[in-house]
Amino acid sequence: MTTPDPDPAAAARGQGPRLYVPDAPLDGHATVDLPAAQSHYLRSVMRRGPGNAVVVFNGRDGEWRATVERLAKAGGRLLCRDRLRPQAAEAGPWLLFAPLKRGPVDLVAEKATELGVARLEPVLTRFTASTRVNTDRLRALAVEAAEQCRRLTVPEVAAPVALARIAETWPAERRLLVLAEHGDATPAARAFAEAAGAPAALLVGPEGGLADSELDALRQLDFVTMVRLGPRILRAETAAIAGLSLWQTLSGDWR
Amino acid sequence: MTTPDPDPAAAARGQGPRLYVPDAPLDGHATVDLPAAQSHYLRSVMRRGPGNAVVVFNGRDGEWRATVERLAKAGGRLLCRDRLRPQAAEAGPWLLFAPLKRGPVDLVAEKATELGVARLEPVLTRFTASTRVNTDRLRALAVEAAEQCRRLTVPEVAAPVALARIAETWPAERRLLVLAEHGDATPAARAFAEAAGAPAALLVGPEGGLADSELDALRQLDFVTMVRLGPRILRAETAAIAGLSLWQTLSGDWR
Repeated sequence: MTTPDPDPAAAARGQGPRLYVPDAPLDGHATVDLPAAQSHYLRSVMRRGPGNAVVVFNGRDGEWRATVERLAKAGGRLLCRDRLRPQAAEAGPWLLFAPLKRGPVDLVAEKATELGVARLEPVLTRFTASTRVNTDRLRALAVEAAEQCRRLTVPEVAAPVALARIAETWPAERRLLVLAEHGDATPAARAFAEAAGAPAALLVGPEGGLADSELDALRQLDFVTMVRLGPRILRAETAAIAGLSLWQTLSGDWR
Repeated sequence: MTTPDPDPAAAARGQGPRLYVPDAPLDGHATVDLPAAQSHYLRSVMRRGPGNAVVVFNGRDGEWRATVERLAKAGGRLLCRDRLRPQAAEAGPWLLFAPLKRGPVDLVAEKATELGVARLEPVLTRFTASTRVNTDRLRALAVEAAEQCRRLTVPEVAAPVALARIAETWPAERRLLVLAEHGDATPAARAFAEAAGAPAALLVGPEGGLADSELDALRQLDFVTMVRLGPRILRAETAAIAGLSLWQTLSGDWR
């Protein structure tokens, strides 16, 4: 995936542009074949050529320094050089979210990736504006964000699921924190502290909020905690970013 | 200020559209004269007419239910009816931020307002892309967001100030949490817990980050704490939203 908005400062601080190359095994002898889009990005956007440094990761073998062998219109090739970081688990929370308009949903995919989410899962709710979710687009945004924020993995983007059906396959040990706009709920500080140490998922509703019947049904599930993020009305994308930040601070890698 | 993107669900949950009317004193006998833009918004966007309910606040007298007397092209008039909520202090933190591109800076103004910021202050840093800051635009975005998120105040938008000069007028009791991308810093959980209970300000740098010399100078100031938001590279706007969420949870009105 290429990025339309490279961050030259970030590239300059590191060892060159950073690419996700999921199909290539990475080791000290590997060659990495690039598809046309990545070759074009390095050549025409980042102005790289033979011998220039690039950073690559594939989600399995850590992060590697590579150099450009060639960059052509049809594709390119990199030579893998030395490992910069070993692979590490990135055990962030899941984020379940109702499909939003394009601007906000793009923001959620990008920011959730920066904030270390492990899985993005669209859920269809009663007031969900649209049942069409472009998961390919969300996946592409997650790849871009993972490249830029220096993650070693890319979050999984799951197929959309109906909210009423999530309990059917829910893993017993994972707590679901529902970021609820109204009704009985635990204040954020206490809810996130109590959830610390166990796998977690966050759920944010659609622009119109979750229906009262949906909130009631969620309250019946023993893996659910209803959470209140303060007295103001937050937009869904704000609640998602806030919730992930709180989780990372109280349970995750911001401790 | 009118909003181009009303949230009908929020309006339906409340008592009608919500307007900031800073020039009108509000009490049980007040009439509220609306400028052309607000009259147009109520009439043409929200489809309101005489007798319909509107919610108003002015930042001083609490939140009031009003009804439409008339809405004309040149302006309108509301009749103030009953007080819905008394005025309350909204003592959120300050946010100091380097000017960003238009999309991200708009996001910062909107989300910071939702998250209860008391003051938005642009700071000019070495790597700040632009020294031009449209404070009128930021103020308009803050008004829109305050109307939609049900705040009782609108954050102040300060004039831009050079980072090197902030110490000259800094209030002694206010801690400045610098959200630093690199270098020595306190992990977020500890830094925000230690800062709890005192007035605070957060600082986020520009897209290119703060210069090493700027970070060194900040470290010399006794009101500064350097804070690290985890191992990934966060964009400036993500750091701002995350930092404000943490402050509200550990010190503010999300407890």
